[in-house]
Amino acid sequence: MFRHRIKTRYQETGQDGIIHHTSYVVYLEEARHELFRKLNCGINALEKKQIFCPVVDLFIKYKKPLYSFEEVFITTGLKSLSKVRFELFYAIYRESEIIGEATTMHCFVNGRFKPIAIPGEIYKAFMQLNAEEAGELLLK
Amino acid sequence: MFRHRIKTRYQETGQDGIIHHTSYVVYLEEARHELFRKLNCGINALEKKQIFCPVVDLFIKYKKPLYSFEEVFITTGLKSLSKVRFELFYAIYRESEIIGEATTMHCFVNGRFKPIAIPGEIYKAFMQLNAEEAGELLLK
Amino acid sequence: MFRHRIKTRYQETGQDGIIHHTSYVVYLEEARHELFRKLNCGINALEKKQIFCPVVDLFIKYKKPLYSFEEVFITTGLKSLSKVRFELFYAIYRESEIIGEATTMHCFVNGRFKPIAIPGEIYKAFMQLNAEEAGELLLK
Amino acid sequence: MFRHRIKTRYQETGQDGIIHHTSYVVYLEEARHELFRKLNCGINALEKKQIFCPVVDLFIKYKKPLYSFEEVFITTGLKSLSKVRFELFYAIYRESEIIGEATTMHCFVNGRFKPIAIPGEIYKAFMQLNAEEAGELLLK
Repeated sequence: MFRHRIKTRYQETGQDGIIHHTSYVVYLEEARHELFRKLNCGINALEKKQIFCPVVDLFIKYKKPLYSFEEVFITTGLKSLSKVRFELFYAIYRESEIIGEATTMHCFVNGRFKPIAIPGEIYKAFMQLNAEEAGELLLK
Repeated sequence: MFRHRIKTRYQETGQDGIIHHTSYVVYLEEARHELFRKLNCGINALEKKQIFCPVVDLFIKYKKPLYSFEEVFITTGLKSLSKVRFELFYAIYRESEIIGEATTMHCFVNGRFKPIAIPGEIYKAFMQLNAEEAGELLLK
Repeated sequence: MFRHRIKTRYQETGQDGIIHHTSYVVYLEEARHELFRKLNCGINALEKKQIFCPVVDLFIKYKKPLYSFEEVFITTGLKSLSKVRFELFYAIYRESEIIGEATTMHCFVNGRFKPIAIPGEIYKAFMQLNAEEAGELLLK
Repeated sequence: MFRHRIKTRYQETGQDGIIHHTSYVVYLEEARHELFRKLNCGINALEKKQIFCPVVDLFIKYKKPLYSFEEVFITTGLKSLSKVRFELFYAIYRESEIIGEATTMHCFVNGRFKPIAIPGEIYKAFMQLNAEEAGELLLK
């Protein structure tokens, strides 16, 4: 499972004293982009080729409030994969306490925002990620 | 159905040229707070009484990209209501074209972030909203 | 003087209960872009021609706190103009009370971020704006 | 000189492809709060005592564009100090290249937003910081 550390910012709080719920969406994106980088499929290299990866849908379950200057980590894994879409799942943790869970569905589009197939190198990287995670599970 | 107009900001775009998906979450919140105000249950008056209304979960389906300086409107309605939770549904429109759909589930908590029942005046306002919407549907 | 209305958002507050100081920067940008639009020099039309208008420097003086759901207005005017740079000044008001003052300096760059002269139509629009404002002052 | 590392986020970009100028303000705040923490005067501990530290004014000079996923560092130092105000200066670097420079002026206020003297422990910490920096300079 891919793990990414985040430190919450003062600017991400709201007048109710907790991290605003929009900031979780930013954290998920950061974790996703770090996963992409680890898979050697950095978003900026893709976008230079006029390949974009928008969010198709997004679900977040907020389980506990977060406060400013907290260190949390986000685990990210592949939930499903087809020729044109992939879905990631995420969990946000304060140490071993679960703070939130989420999924995001994505597709790929070209420069005119028309859907295209998942680029070959990304599909391959996801397949390998899946295999590694299946392996991790077998080892447990 | 409650309708709220938004104008997208330059600052809300990303390097891919479209409004970043986090901004939709902000638009939904603005629409929700305007609905609360229309129901005479403004969030600031509630928070002064140490009653807070966090997001329990959030789902957004992104159907079309949005660009900077676009005028869109958001319709908001009540999807479900219990003694402790309520769920709203939203649709975002560019004229008659649907841009996105969403739901948010909410509860109420006190100043120590402990769940409390939906405050009486809000429950009543929601019930009346529901009745009005049922009436609207009957008239169609 | 160009006047633009803003309504502060809940999401723009921080844990200290007031609008976070970064949000003022967003308000100024919105006011500036609305001024550009009024001058028939909308930013999106410029950017389509690969002309960009970055901020060179920014100064803000915060005089009073702002709270969520407040309606404020921003006045914007031209402070200085050369062949390659222009400076705007702003004041943010809650009714007649001044909340903040600011200036922003800007230049124009091409798609490779190299400085270019102020585009002719913008220079002309600014000159005319200046003349109108001088006229306004004479009439006082 | 206090040094703080930042990694720019995709979400902080704008449609012109560079990090939006508001994000620099967030980076400065993060650097400032980390400095406070290093001085044993964390903002959250202060706010629990109903002592707040608003921005009085802010100046930023943007020298070079920043892009997504860049690692930059921010140096922060004390520019001036009185019984009621302090001013910090900042520089943002990509390796040895200077990206931007800034200053922020701050005061302290109580829970009703009335100005108060700089709390004793912070004044002392700043004096010591100044002495250390003077020492650093002497050693050069």
